[in-house]
Amino acid sequence: MFRLSPLFLLAILLCACSEKEITHADLPAYTLVIHGGAGALLRTDMSPALDSQYRVKLNEALDVGEAILANGGSALDAVTETIRIMEDSPLFNAGKGAVFASDGTNQMDASIMEGKTMEAGAVGGVQHVKNPILAARAVMEKSDHVLLTGEGADQFAVEVGLDTAGAEYFFTQRRWEGLIKAQKNDNPSSDIIAPHANQDRKFGTVGAVALDQSGNLAAGTSTGGMTNKKWNRLGDSPIIGAGTYADNRSCAVSCTGHGEYFIRYAVAHELSSRMRHIPGDLDQMATQLLHEELFPAGGTGGLIALDRKGNISMPFTTEGMYRGYTKPGERKVAIYLEE
Amino acid sequence: MFRLSPLFLLAILLCACSEKEITHADLPAYTLVIHGGAGALLRTDMSPALDSQYRVKLNEALDVGEAILANGGSALDAVTETIRIMEDSPLFNAGKGAVFASDGTNQMDASIMEGKTMEAGAVGGVQHVKNPILAARAVMEKSDHVLLTGEGADQFAVEVGLDTAGAEYFFTQRRWEGLIKAQKNDNPSSDIIAPHANQDRKFGTVGAVALDQSGNLAAGTSTGGMTNKKWNRLGDSPIIGAGTYADNRSCAVSCTGHGEYFIRYAVAHELSSRMRHIPGDLDQMATQLLHEELFPAGGTGGLIALDRKGNISMPFTTEGMYRGYTKPGERKVAIYLEE
Repeated sequence: MFRLSPLFLLAILLCACSEKEITHADLPAYTLVIHGGAGALLRTDMSPALDSQYRVKLNEALDVGEAILANGGSALDAVTETIRIMEDSPLFNAGKGAVFASDGTNQMDASIMEGKTMEAGAVGGVQHVKNPILAARAVMEKSDHVLLTGEGADQFAVEVGLDTAGAEYFFTQRRWEGLIKAQKNDNPSSDIIAPHANQDRKFGTVGAVALDQSGNLAAGTSTGGMTNKKWNRLGDSPIIGAGTYADNRSCAVSCTGHGEYFIRYAVAHELSSRMRHIPGDLDQMATQLLHEELFPAGGTGGLIALDRKGNISMPFTTEGMYRGYTKPGERKVAIYLEE
Repeated sequence: MFRLSPLFLLAILLCACSEKEITHADLPAYTLVIHGGAGALLRTDMSPALDSQYRVKLNEALDVGEAILANGGSALDAVTETIRIMEDSPLFNAGKGAVFASDGTNQMDASIMEGKTMEAGAVGGVQHVKNPILAARAVMEKSDHVLLTGEGADQFAVEVGLDTAGAEYFFTQRRWEGLIKAQKNDNPSSDIIAPHANQDRKFGTVGAVALDQSGNLAAGTSTGGMTNKKWNRLGDSPIIGAGTYADNRSCAVSCTGHGEYFIRYAVAHELSSRMRHIPGDLDQMATQLLHEELFPAGGTGGLIALDRKGNISMPFTTEGMYRGYTKPGERKVAIYLEE
């Protein structure tokens, strides 16, 4: 055996401390990123008043999540409460503002995942839960399951004591008109297809990804799905791996867009998997995935992603995406591409 | 400019030809791999007659798929028809032999994916379609969607002309007794938990992966899910990325096991993603994923995987898995670990 010199031990200790200090100084205490859907958003289509309403609500959602993170709360709580604010607003296609299915009902999907435990919960096609993101979280925390659907998921939500609401709560004039318009466009006897009509109907999901002061990631997504959808269609939002993924080993991701493509390319998990297996920059990898793989295959949309170093990515292949992020001393909210 | 010598051109031509020849000689004309579920299968629990019935049926399924592939048919057709044979048998937890949900209904899930186009289709919680794999394929080929659920999925199946069957068709004494037993075990007033009872209930899915003579891959999975399931729970079988994935750039995968873990770790897509991003051996990578990541996290089960070179993997972390493969001049069917 050989003896370690005290000087050598001291050197190791100093190195360890200094590395820890550098790490701390480099990393943000917390980070929160949100989206409110991607789509054919054009300045010309938006009134200044509506533009302002969206920005106020995005900032409010960031405020609520940031308060949790700044006080040492968990990424999971921040994601839940941030999404809840957006679900309670009629502006976004989730919760209160959910679009209508072809039968005039609101069928909502949500999912949530924690990066530390890799536990996850999701609901598909709920019609009565006021906040689908709370139902997804309850599935994760209060059941042995990951995905509950339809009436069963609503029943589970009632059993665990979540608030429900009647159809009148989810009724908004704007979404109802969207359904009427979509049904006209889907009717083969109608020759007129409104520009962007089909594209717009697939978008408007909300989502959040967060990094807390303990270094844990979480991701969540909530949506009303596609206007005029039939056959209890589910998109990517309730699918862990497609619309939502979080893994402390790589990153947290929430997607929005043409859900069928995000399922087929397992976009959220693909980004997470790449970040684990290929060394590289989060934003570059996320942008590449959307622009060079998904878009050429026909899939449009966007995503938000966040790694444990607080690196942020918010790429999209549409004209705009409601989005924003906040970290100590830095805040941004944007809608259009050039912002 | 410089002139290429005719000798040099000839050398290139010869190299190209010889490479093509080697490739052809090395690769099988086609390959088909199937599973009929993983679980606590022990020789002591199985009568010789039942053991034989399983082997006969696995061989029959392989025969049907092989006939398609040998005649130049597509991997997609081989996967569909192979799974259909297993769905029509009461031996497996899919189609005819599907287990019962807590309300006494049969709620079946299936998915299918094509490696060339990366198109996919799935149904979750159908109760009336005789062959859920046909419904999954119809979703892929006759709708703009990937995943339809519940009553809507059944309605879609009827609209596209698929055969339906009444509850009496799906009734099997063995599965009904499984439900009664599970409900006794789930009842907190009962102190007796039968060994393996909870574990067994999560298994029994069927699946197939195929490589056709055009070099295309396909994968499919079908299941009755978990005995005594509530709240319209979906497992990994109808989830593209979790229970099923196919990508000509990497491999085709079908999983069976404790579905919630396969969703959280996006097992089918993770294997496909790794095969694209890390050079390595399919069997080694699949085995590692199940034994070194999923099992330590608490998830048991198995998978079958196949790449474009005809490499096969059939790992599982349970006592056994009904499984088999066939390629020109080679056939194997097995149940237990040591086979």
